Amino acid sequence: MDLQEVLNDIRTEVLDAGLKGSLPDYIPELANIDPEKFGMHLQTLDGRSFSFGDSQEKFSIQSISKVFTLVKAFQYKGSILWDRVGVEPSGDPFNSLQQLEFESGIPRNPLINAGALLTADILVSELKNPKLDFLEFVRSLAGSREVYYNEKVAYSELSCSHRNAAMVNLMKSFGNIQNDVNLVLDFYCHACSIEMSCTELAKAFLVFSNHGKLPHDQQQILSVSDTKRINSIMHACGFYDEVGMFSYRVGLPGKSGVGGGIVAIHPSDYSVAVWAPELNGKGNSVKGMMALELLTTKTGYSIF
Amino acid sequence: MDLQEVLNDIRTEVLDAGLKGSLPDYIPELANIDPEKFGMHLQTLDGRSFSFGDSQEKFSIQSISKVFTLVKAFQYKGSILWDRVGVEPSGDPFNSLQQLEFESGIPRNPLINAGALLTADILVSELKNPKLDFLEFVRSLAGSREVYYNEKVAYSELSCSHRNAAMVNLMKSFGNIQNDVNLVLDFYCHACSIEMSCTELAKAFLVFSNHGKLPHDQQQILSVSDTKRINSIMHACGFYDEVGMFSYRVGLPGKSGVGGGIVAIHPSDYSVAVWAPELNGKGNSVKGMMALELLTTKTGYSIF
Amino acid sequence: MDLQEVLNDIRTEVLDAGLKGSLPDYIPELANIDPEKFGMHLQTLDGRSFSFGDSQEKFSIQSISKVFTLVKAFQYKGSILWDRVGVEPSGDPFNSLQQLEFESGIPRNPLINAGALLTADILVSELKNPKLDFLEFVRSLAGSREVYYNEKVAYSELSCSHRNAAMVNLMKSFGNIQNDVNLVLDFYCHACSIEMSCTELAKAFLVFSNHGKLPHDQQQILSVSDTKRINSIMHACGFYDEVGMFSYRVGLPGKSGVGGGIVAIHPSDYSVAVWAPELNGKGNSVKGMMALELLTTKTGYSIF
Amino acid sequence: MDLQEVLNDIRTEVLDAGLKGSLPDYIPELANIDPEKFGMHLQTLDGRSFSFGDSQEKFSIQSISKVFTLVKAFQYKGSILWDRVGVEPSGDPFNSLQQLEFESGIPRNPLINAGALLTADILVSELKNPKLDFLEFVRSLAGSREVYYNEKVAYSELSCSHRNAAMVNLMKSFGNIQNDVNLVLDFYCHACSIEMSCTELAKAFLVFSNHGKLPHDQQQILSVSDTKRINSIMHACGFYDEVGMFSYRVGLPGKSGVGGGIVAIHPSDYSVAVWAPELNGKGNSVKGMMALELLTTKTGYSIF
Repeated sequence: MDLQEVLNDIRTEVLDAGLKGSLPDYIPELANIDPEKFGMHLQTLDGRSFSFGDSQEKFSIQSISKVFTLVKAFQYKGSILWDRVGVEPSGDPFNSLQQLEFESGIPRNPLINAGALLTADILVSELKNPKLDFLEFVRSLAGSREVYYNEKVAYSELSCSHRNAAMVNLMKSFGNIQNDVNLVLDFYCHACSIEMSCTELAKAFLVFSNHGKLPHDQQQILSVSDTKRINSIMHACGFYDEVGMFSYRVGLPGKSGVGGGIVAIHPSDYSVAVWAPELNGKGNSVKGMMALELLTTKTGYSIF
Repeated sequence: MDLQEVLNDIRTEVLDAGLKGSLPDYIPELANIDPEKFGMHLQTLDGRSFSFGDSQEKFSIQSISKVFTLVKAFQYKGSILWDRVGVEPSGDPFNSLQQLEFESGIPRNPLINAGALLTADILVSELKNPKLDFLEFVRSLAGSREVYYNEKVAYSELSCSHRNAAMVNLMKSFGNIQNDVNLVLDFYCHACSIEMSCTELAKAFLVFSNHGKLPHDQQQILSVSDTKRINSIMHACGFYDEVGMFSYRVGLPGKSGVGGGIVAIHPSDYSVAVWAPELNGKGNSVKGMMALELLTTKTGYSIF
Repeated sequence: MDLQEVLNDIRTEVLDAGLKGSLPDYIPELANIDPEKFGMHLQTLDGRSFSFGDSQEKFSIQSISKVFTLVKAFQYKGSILWDRVGVEPSGDPFNSLQQLEFESGIPRNPLINAGALLTADILVSELKNPKLDFLEFVRSLAGSREVYYNEKVAYSELSCSHRNAAMVNLMKSFGNIQNDVNLVLDFYCHACSIEMSCTELAKAFLVFSNHGKLPHDQQQILSVSDTKRINSIMHACGFYDEVGMFSYRVGLPGKSGVGGGIVAIHPSDYSVAVWAPELNGKGNSVKGMMALELLTTKTGYSIF
Repeated sequence: MDLQEVLNDIRTEVLDAGLKGSLPDYIPELANIDPEKFGMHLQTLDGRSFSFGDSQEKFSIQSISKVFTLVKAFQYKGSILWDRVGVEPSGDPFNSLQQLEFESGIPRNPLINAGALLTADILVSELKNPKLDFLEFVRSLAGSREVYYNEKVAYSELSCSHRNAAMVNLMKSFGNIQNDVNLVLDFYCHACSIEMSCTELAKAFLVFSNHGKLPHDQQQILSVSDTKRINSIMHACGFYDEVGMFSYRVGLPGKSGVGGGIVAIHPSDYSVAVWAPELNGKGNSVKGMMALELLTTKTGYSIF
């Protein structure tokens, strides 16, 4: 199968479909992005890569960073991490304060906001220079030093982060946050503000296809078994309360962000990142969802 | 009817009943109080007063202060206050984050924590020196200058006020808090830390029996109609999620606090305050509830 | 004060206000009622009566019947009734399955649907001929034999009573319903279908102003103390999730029904019934609410 | 790899672990089962089979039948099925009435009770002799005529099915059930009462590994694409509110039942059924979960 041709067809079909969505309005830097941006990059384990459009343009990875904070926290804590955060889908369309209150400050999983604030708390405790050290970790995954925070985005989010502040405070009231809430929020907003291109994201996620071993330097950052677990969590929890629909339509583990990016992997095979800023009502890129659905339909490569 | 004799009988019957409860454990200053303290003071509109026990010893009024912040905020805002806070009982045993989230940051009523944080926000905006001016207002109600904040209690509560911080942040995320969250929390914790005796509280609440006119200086602080409304809110919302049971057993508008105080009024007739630190599972003084139930049973003076 | 003049003024002011509401659409017999109907009847304990408009026309009392089933069940069970149903306001705008599930099949209070289904279950157990005997009881309260079920309304409701069926089944799953669910639903729908006029309703509720003694034959149907309790429950729970607002605006214990009727009492003084079919979003008569608010404002006779 | 040896090791390790759980107490026929029963059967697409223990003994498949009703309803309705039931995990530990009410009578997915009652309603509409025709369908999947309902279990469940009755009635109140509620419940309880052995279940599920084609007669019962979708739904929703943990530990699509059975598939490869009656707090077989976790760990064959 000619994968470049598959990607070209995907691009055409998605553009022809004329899908519309909306941009997130609470962060000026995201609201003013060109809604026509559209890029995709597929990276195979055997070293081939395929792409189209704005695949090399950096964008705000937002919630995709939750996978990176999860992996780093899991490296430090191992399975005792699950004493402080679950692995179940949240199933809750109304964000998470209600659920978080009901479940005594234990977030449902590490890929919703509350759970990522929890892994942020762990990294603030464990890392010597949390923001610097975490950035270096993401760079090592991507195999590139050209990965940065966008400070303007970080502070913009921090200044309107009252709901996240409510969540950290609620978790702290249950004893499940150890650091000062402002430190945790600052770290969290910085992690969300990281900017990467589809190419960089696909490369950074290839480790999850590769059973935990970084393809570019053969470093084993997670055991084979733990990598399966991260993949399973991405699959069960990576798309807010649309995980079932993503699994139904696409059938790959992955993670989306409100910056319009989605990254997914096919175990033992490839990773793929797509970027198109317009979002559906669940916060997932409309064009990105369709592009990935077409990918697994055309290639027959879903996990099911 | 000899009301002093009624009070004496109440004291005996309550002590004979051997009721047990627990002290709040999250504030050292409240946890270490002598659980045997027990006082009561009844003040009639025609100037008579009756009391027993520790009726003149000051204690932490805690949530009883929510009536004072409500009245002051109502003086400033009038009925537009109800755009930002409701007048319905909360009916929610699980504190209020869930309800507050579901109802878009509008607290159910001004006598639950979220609602009192909202009136605190209004007073922080309206008062020139919020903490000083508010204390003067409470002193004017009590007709006594010997009313003070307990700074140790205030800071002790502030340091463990994560759940309240979660609520203010959640309300701010919905645009229903105007000031800095720390300013609001500081004011709120100070208001809760006010210390008054049963005698002082009964005097301060007599204005609600007297249709809004301060008995000691004839100043009309609320209109007749607005006073009825405050009484109706106390009756519908003054006892956490035990309002129905308090109404069923006692049948008077009032307000309780986790310091063990309860104050209640009989319109056109009297006010009464009781203090006994041990609380039932709903946060209301066990001896205080029984004492007030006996009072309305023995005198036949409930509102029903 | 000339109470007939007060009522005349209320009629004029309410009609001038041009209030609009909607008719319940799920029961044809209620949807087709003339929305302009408007009547009121006030009955004093000392034997005077005042009225206007359609005060003698019968209408479907609907949820007002919940007070009658409560009183009859309370006569049989006394305070052990509260093991199976609470006395707290429900505070829940989304009807009650969620709350009922969370609280293990114990309805919040006897004046919401779930609670009235519970008292219906008790009466189905206790009464020899449940529907006949209950009708006789209501007739004895009203002092009139001209009170009937409307069978067409009863069966119309029964045929679209799936939500009520859900509630009875849920309670039965928790062991809190003893009879066959269809028997309970049949009894409940018949009780709701009773038709009475404002005059008959005011007379039937006068017993709650009169400390439990029927005015027309001096029979004590409830003790003084239990009558206070029924009044307190009406006050805390009689208006769905608008109890606080009714208390705030009117300040009397009472009960409303989706047939457009509201009945309220002033202890030791009077009972009053008003009927106007158009409802607000909470299911309470819009004209009826305003009429009662004007009554307590003009007479100064609220309980607060 | 010698799969029979793998199964033998699994049996030994699971028995050595001494896991304990409890039997469901609401159905006498399930409560009295021998808790030591333990069998497993693995069936590969290339025709090999491996097993141990009580793999040929029939047991009550209970909720595993929800996959069969889903597939049959999906055959009739295609993707318009998703107008009446979702594909998202429920994430709700407190069964589903609350969620069902909040989401207007649309069940979260077809593998929770509410969703299976919905597919039951469809089959009652579509099948000429619903119970007979459905049984024939299951027999055709299993390639065996020796599959039967257990009428005693069916009626035992029907008689204590009040919570299910509450759900059907609630859905009917939202217009999402077309048939008489008793017909739907009767069909549903019969489907749950089907008895099959591990061997039969593994054979019946092999079609989901085989891209929708029945291995024994090459009949295509679902398209390739629809089979992926059924697998994705099993993976996202097949284990009550423990789907994330099952995915994390096992990493295969599957379905469990309170009869102690679990069946799972590896796409393009094999199906596997395990039976051990003792359940964990989430309603899944404790030994079964461990056996399947060991299977994917030892073989490395998870989907991730």
